[in-house]
Amino acid sequence: MTEGLFDAPGARPTVLPFDVEDPRLARAAWSRLAEPGDVVAGALVGQLGPAGALQWLARAARDPVAAARALGSSVPEGQTTGSPARPSAGARLAASVERWAPRLENLDPRRELHVLRRYGGALLTPGDDGWPAALDDLGAAAPFALWVRGRSDVGALAARSVALVGARASTSYGEHVAAGMASGLADRGFTVVSGGAYGIDAAAHRGSVAADGVTIALLAGGVDRFYPQGNHDLLRRIAEDGGAVVSEVPPGSAPFRQRFLARNRIIAALSSATVVVEAAWRSGALSTARRAAELLRPVGAVPGPVTSMASAGCHGLLRDGVATCVTDAAEAAELAGDLGSDAAPVRQGRGDVVDGMDDVGRSLWDALPVRTPAALESVARTAGRTVRETLAGLGRLELDGHAVQEGGGWRRAEPTNR
Amino acid sequence: MTEGLFDAPGARPTVLPFDVEDPRLARAAWSRLAEPGDVVAGALVGQLGPAGALQWLARAARDPVAAARALGSSVPEGQTTGSPARPSAGARLAASVERWAPRLENLDPRRELHVLRRYGGALLTPGDDGWPAALDDLGAAAPFALWVRGRSDVGALAARSVALVGARASTSYGEHVAAGMASGLADRGFTVVSGGAYGIDAAAHRGSVAADGVTIALLAGGVDRFYPQGNHDLLRRIAEDGGAVVSEVPPGSAPFRQRFLARNRIIAALSSATVVVEAAWRSGALSTARRAAELLRPVGAVPGPVTSMASAGCHGLLRDGVATCVTDAAEAAELAGDLGSDAAPVRQGRGDVVDGMDDVGRSLWDALPVRTPAALESVARTAGRTVRETLAGLGRLELDGHAVQEGGGWRRAEPTNR
Repeated sequence: MTEGLFDAPGARPTVLPFDVEDPRLARAAWSRLAEPGDVVAGALVGQLGPAGALQWLARAARDPVAAARALGSSVPEGQTTGSPARPSAGARLAASVERWAPRLENLDPRRELHVLRRYGGALLTPGDDGWPAALDDLGAAAPFALWVRGRSDVGALAARSVALVGARASTSYGEHVAAGMASGLADRGFTVVSGGAYGIDAAAHRGSVAADGVTIALLAGGVDRFYPQGNHDLLRRIAEDGGAVVSEVPPGSAPFRQRFLARNRIIAALSSATVVVEAAWRSGALSTARRAAELLRPVGAVPGPVTSMASAGCHGLLRDGVATCVTDAAEAAELAGDLGSDAAPVRQGRGDVVDGMDDVGRSLWDALPVRTPAALESVARTAGRTVRETLAGLGRLELDGHAVQEGGGWRRAEPTNR
Repeated sequence: MTEGLFDAPGARPTVLPFDVEDPRLARAAWSRLAEPGDVVAGALVGQLGPAGALQWLARAARDPVAAARALGSSVPEGQTTGSPARPSAGARLAASVERWAPRLENLDPRRELHVLRRYGGALLTPGDDGWPAALDDLGAAAPFALWVRGRSDVGALAARSVALVGARASTSYGEHVAAGMASGLADRGFTVVSGGAYGIDAAAHRGSVAADGVTIALLAGGVDRFYPQGNHDLLRRIAEDGGAVVSEVPPGSAPFRQRFLARNRIIAALSSATVVVEAAWRSGALSTARRAAELLRPVGAVPGPVTSMASAGCHGLLRDGVATCVTDAAEAAELAGDLGSDAAPVRQGRGDVVDGMDDVGRSLWDALPVRTPAALESVARTAGRTVRETLAGLGRLELDGHAVQEGGGWRRAEPTNR
């Protein structure tokens, strides 16, 4: 349907070495051309289709102004990596073309797919069985494709999932909590999603693996290179042992800072809920939490000592009302799951002798002497109860083994066999 | 005005050894007759005045049925220490009379006032300059009087106050936080209110004392006996050194369990805000927090390690939305104070080289090689920016000392003097 958009007389045909009309190849190409979260690219692909947008770009690269004019203002305004002064849609599109065009050189997604296949991976694009529909909530910021190593039914795996994210500079407390929470979530059939980084991410993945659970690691760089190096074995185990290592950028892409931040939106959108285990004030995990909240996903934060800077970001989320306080796997599951089966159990304190007593019983218990029995009237006066109330109440306490009559008076029963 | 209520022919006059018409003596008497929080007594005193209610009781003690009938249903239904099946107002009043009447024996508040004066204390009743008007929010559950040792301008002291409450079975973490928060609140001119108990209460009082602040200890028993014994020196120091030790029950009253729970409502009502520092699931501090919330006072909870049972109650308050997460004195002050001068400072993270950069700058910074300079076009392609954006952006980075030109290319500046 986009044929002829730039078929001005004498226009040279697009020269790309692969079948541009193949939507999977075209999406793979877009995941290379545009930086993650580029909503101008997302809107263009949404409007023209991945193949049509690619053809449009190949031609526009030679005449950006005409290309922008041909599309007019039909590319919607969106949130991109905006500069302070927001240019018009046409100017933004032209600037975008200028940004994407240099990457048309040597563009060939078949090469990257070949690398992926060599690692036993698979490409997921929207419409595939394994594609997680939850990512559609990202709109124009949705990834063009997912490059996956390990299980490729990412959509099914993520349908019941919790993102456990947090600081790389974690404490042993945070790692302990993350691993335990991940194991508990795995036991409850939840997939644990995280970013494969050091610290909380790694502890979360490890906790899930240790409980034979399913875990998904979302990398900021290509899945051909497990980054960071120190987590290589962990990520390989995830990919080979029932989990998935996933990226929106093709093999060969380096994990830049902006890609980390953009990657966080996928963690947030993919997971049924996001829980921040430990995060300092500037932690990237906070951006994941805020994206999740924007996407109306439940957000939890694990508290920690107020003396620990590694928990300050979590406390900030709690103070701002962005996150619910989450202290264990049951509460994380409740956040993500159905209210019925996944509801966290109501807390029960230690049993106490007065637990089963009503107010009269408690006041009588308080008034009863421990050793030397007291007269009924004395107990009543001390407790501030009527003689009738006191008589009836002491009778109940006696039946329950809490009070005894002795020498015409009353005292507490010995605390044996309680 | 209540004269003649029971002046049936032949009725014996009331025999009480003190001037029943003295409203201060009558209130002191009621604080001995009724258990703390007895709303039937509160309603009766509210309706007949303390002296009238006392005369009514003295006569009703001899004929409870006629007394109840004379008042009819004019004593409002209230929340008292209710038994499961709620009796009628008349029956409840009759039962109350039966409860209060035994304490008429030997009733003489002049004796208790004498004890109080011996300790240099003062009695506060509603209408006194020192009476805290905030207690009126308790309605029929308001105390009849306050027995005070130390500064008697309790109302003025409590006008800008934070209750710091928590577990007796505290951890060193909780005590550390309580003491630090109390000192910080004292520095900000807040009175610290607490219950004088071991653990968090004592740490809070101590923190305020250490910062030369004002602190109020609200005891569950009489102020003649500083309970618990281990806090005797602390409580004496509070009473003698610019603070106040306060109780609603007269000297000689023992600190029963029910009186602790009832006392908590006064802490909640008296303070501008209540912050729970550490509390297990069944801690009485949680009742203080919930009472404060019912009274529409701001409530805070200090988080702690989720592995610490001593913080579980705080986390429960956060989960239930009863409390705001509070991590330091500034946030506690913000909770209690005016939004203007007491607002907690916005958190600032550590400085980072990319802090002052916009998105273009950050992506260029990521793309810049650390050592070997790269060509402008290469930096642009790596960053996914246009050549124009890249040129302008690198110029800004160079000006800010973050990027250098070298041999026709660009690289990051050395991280010296940053």
